[in-house]
Amino acid sequence: MIKRALVSVFNKTGVLNFVKTLQDEFGIEILSTGGTAKLLQENGIEVIQVSDYTKSPEVFSGRVKTLHPRIEGGILMRRDNESDLKEAVENNIPPIDMVVCNLYPFTNVISKPDVPLETALEMIDIGGPTMIRAAAKTFPFVTVISDPSQFEMILQELRENHGQTTLKTREALAVTVFQKMAFYDSAIANYLISRQHKQPLPEILIRQYQKIQDCRYGENWDQKAAFYRDMEAVLGLSDFKQLHGKELSFNNFLDVDSCVQMLLDLDTKHFVTAILKHTTPNGVAIDYESQLESCKRAFSCDPMSAFGGVWGFNKKLEKSVADYIINEKKIFVEVIIAPEYEESALSILKTKENIRILEFPGFLDRRDEFYARPELRSTLGGVLMQDYDSGPVIKEWDEKTSRKTDEREKEALIFAYKVTKWAKSNSAAFAKEYETGVYTLGIGAGQQSRVHVVKLAIQKAHEFGHDLKNSVMGTDSFFPFPDGPEAAAKAGAKAILTVGGSIRDDVVIQRAEELGISLVFCGKRVFRH
Amino acid sequence: MIKRALVSVFNKTGVLNFVKTLQDEFGIEILSTGGTAKLLQENGIEVIQVSDYTKSPEVFSGRVKTLHPRIEGGILMRRDNESDLKEAVENNIPPIDMVVCNLYPFTNVISKPDVPLETALEMIDIGGPTMIRAAAKTFPFVTVISDPSQFEMILQELRENHGQTTLKTREALAVTVFQKMAFYDSAIANYLISRQHKQPLPEILIRQYQKIQDCRYGENWDQKAAFYRDMEAVLGLSDFKQLHGKELSFNNFLDVDSCVQMLLDLDTKHFVTAILKHTTPNGVAIDYESQLESCKRAFSCDPMSAFGGVWGFNKKLEKSVADYIINEKKIFVEVIIAPEYEESALSILKTKENIRILEFPGFLDRRDEFYARPELRSTLGGVLMQDYDSGPVIKEWDEKTSRKTDEREKEALIFAYKVTKWAKSNSAAFAKEYETGVYTLGIGAGQQSRVHVVKLAIQKAHEFGHDLKNSVMGTDSFFPFPDGPEAAAKAGAKAILTVGGSIRDDVVIQRAEELGISLVFCGKRVFRH
Repeated sequence: MIKRALVSVFNKTGVLNFVKTLQDEFGIEILSTGGTAKLLQENGIEVIQVSDYTKSPEVFSGRVKTLHPRIEGGILMRRDNESDLKEAVENNIPPIDMVVCNLYPFTNVISKPDVPLETALEMIDIGGPTMIRAAAKTFPFVTVISDPSQFEMILQELRENHGQTTLKTREALAVTVFQKMAFYDSAIANYLISRQHKQPLPEILIRQYQKIQDCRYGENWDQKAAFYRDMEAVLGLSDFKQLHGKELSFNNFLDVDSCVQMLLDLDTKHFVTAILKHTTPNGVAIDYESQLESCKRAFSCDPMSAFGGVWGFNKKLEKSVADYIINEKKIFVEVIIAPEYEESALSILKTKENIRILEFPGFLDRRDEFYARPELRSTLGGVLMQDYDSGPVIKEWDEKTSRKTDEREKEALIFAYKVTKWAKSNSAAFAKEYETGVYTLGIGAGQQSRVHVVKLAIQKAHEFGHDLKNSVMGTDSFFPFPDGPEAAAKAGAKAILTVGGSIRDDVVIQRAEELGISLVFCGKRVFRH
Repeated sequence: MIKRALVSVFNKTGVLNFVKTLQDEFGIEILSTGGTAKLLQENGIEVIQVSDYTKSPEVFSGRVKTLHPRIEGGILMRRDNESDLKEAVENNIPPIDMVVCNLYPFTNVISKPDVPLETALEMIDIGGPTMIRAAAKTFPFVTVISDPSQFEMILQELRENHGQTTLKTREALAVTVFQKMAFYDSAIANYLISRQHKQPLPEILIRQYQKIQDCRYGENWDQKAAFYRDMEAVLGLSDFKQLHGKELSFNNFLDVDSCVQMLLDLDTKHFVTAILKHTTPNGVAIDYESQLESCKRAFSCDPMSAFGGVWGFNKKLEKSVADYIINEKKIFVEVIIAPEYEESALSILKTKENIRILEFPGFLDRRDEFYARPELRSTLGGVLMQDYDSGPVIKEWDEKTSRKTDEREKEALIFAYKVTKWAKSNSAAFAKEYETGVYTLGIGAGQQSRVHVVKLAIQKAHEFGHDLKNSVMGTDSFFPFPDGPEAAAKAGAKAILTVGGSIRDDVVIQRAEELGISLVFCGKRVFRH
């Protein structure tokens, strides 16, 4: 039976009704402090002031209120320990069975710009953490409520358990306390570090993640895995809504991540379709007028790899597209992602039990929020952290040969270059403009030498019946030799976009000139390993 | 000037000398409790017992010692606030200017197997965290020493600053407190969760990393990046010693990571050479007798990509190998890694200013330590966490066709399969045994369809003059169609190792039978995206 509760909350949501019920239904004695006590008393709840209880005044503008042996001892005493019970009587320390307390909102305060240090320090709670940590340590006996969201559940349990909580609930509440404290103190540490080093790569990096789902397995069947949300992130994959299908696998998440980033890089005005597998695009298209046309063109690039792929769209998915994929072409799609879905499109897609359907309304307009936190890559015993490669993909437009590109070619080149950014390095992508858009004809990815990846892209284009005459090519880094441009020109490319910066640039430029093609340098490498 | 220090430590390393100096050199008054007070007094240090100071006894076996307004208020009072100073006098709360305190070693205790819950709960420190958090919050005035490693630095600063610490130091010490607390409380939360759910993927994941070096840039030039050590890791890349050359780049770290993991997967008895670029192997060999031969064979696979690559060796690097790479073949090597180096080998390598030379003595015998912590992969706004794929690469040996493999073929198949594990999926690797070892002839990586990657590997092998007759092939996942085995057999492969498990296994097996080759299933997929 809970006899005595200490109530001291910053966030007062729901506290009035909760404490009123504690007193009226369960006859629990209420200790309280400061603003909380005032609120409760004004609403007719009988409250013992902590300062009366401890016979020790609140001092230093509330910095010291509850830090007193009669309070902390009342929480910490072991109810099954004879010596503790004896000392409690000798020292007049009655047990406190419940602590209701939430903390000063440190993270809210410091998230505002230019908060003075004193204001931030004032928001570091000391008394609150001490009480809830003491109560959490003593969870075999004490109930600790550290969040207003817990009130309802606790009242229900008290009603079902004759005014007591279960051990299981108390332990779960204790876990919440230590999780909240870890997050709270890491936020304080990160705040203080960021004050000293005005740079985004701190000496000590603390990251907190909350599990969203266990995966059936990881990259392979015998690896345990789970998907986590970054607790400081504003927007991420965990905000996507799944409308249908089995839960996402580890590899699905990786593919969806690449697909969304591709969509963030491509056109938002027109209709984009991006098809990926193994985090690498195998067909992409932009159409100015028709989503269906963009889908058909993206699919045509490599219809073999498109099976079992992740299909991404940047606009509300139309019925005609769903019909094309499911009924006309009968393509097995692993995951489909779009900002929204026409009701009729969704109905068609849902006829396939296994297709995973994800929705992300309006997210493509929130690029900065997606990229607010840097990227981590594990290495043995550590991580590499880097800013996302989210800056402009084209830094300059430096035409190196006498053949000049026109506007449509330029558009196709930039498109091809953005595609090559998302194909694993080294990579090359051939693209071509058509009446109402631009699409990929052949994508080569993941080679260790540049000429091989050009040849690979050509070979794949030819295999799927694409004519590379008058195409353009983008590649994610510079050509060390003229053999790459030679292969591209021979296949029919009229223009190439690359970063520039090889020690043999002159030779490469001269060869492009001889071949009669445009060679453009954009000044930005787009490796993705 | 620091006048009064509170000392209460669990780990007593160095505390005696530190406190003695505080008292003797700087005349600081010492408050202390329990075991710490006893130790100090026995060694002739004058100590005021906290229980005398607060006129409140220690109760509940030390659960409540310092949790008293006279202690916490003495720490928390703002020395630049008139009302605080007035209240301090009225309530007889003298300032405490320094807190020396370290916590109960919760993580040490719970790391032992089968610790009873009560023992673990007893190790959750309440008084210590309250004191150090209070002192850290008040860092504009108070010095908080939460680790014995800080003693020396503080004494030096006190000597240089007339018995005071600098604001900068106090802020840094405060940061340490909140970092320690975040870590401490996340360990408690994870412990309690693991009691309820016997699984290694906690609901809340807290990771702490310490920066080892800033990188000049990330994957591309405009990305800021740094390399961090996992503060809970036992062994990792940060333990490697660099003997020569410029500091490692972001992409170097990724390549070194893959290279070391390849070496961990391959033979440790014989001589291994593994050459990588963009995290993917482009030539690997094992020789039973000669390191030089293994180096030559690995290089021969794709001499074009080997330039500018990361070269890894599993044994002490010999002079002949250094001579071959640098003087005979004049190969530009980005990074070379080996457990140790012959002095003469090192001299040869060092003639090249830019080569990065890394040493990792004995690390290949410490596989479990490398893989003790799971792997993270960033997704937008979160991470995927998974166990490393560090289990046995071969789970079973199921020969599916009537042509049986002999011991040497089996060795070559397993070798090829291990290579394909580290080439990005989908991948395929051709290998061949020779008199004193086994080596790769052609590696295809990163394709989205299985037949293409086989063709790619064949094409590369042919380009560099390798005869695939009587070769073997490994590929990282199953064949969905018989076209992959057909291409391999046509090129000359006599045996193929793959995982098995396609819905068309029967068709694939039947085709392999017709082709007269061995098809072996190993039951373990080795994707690497």
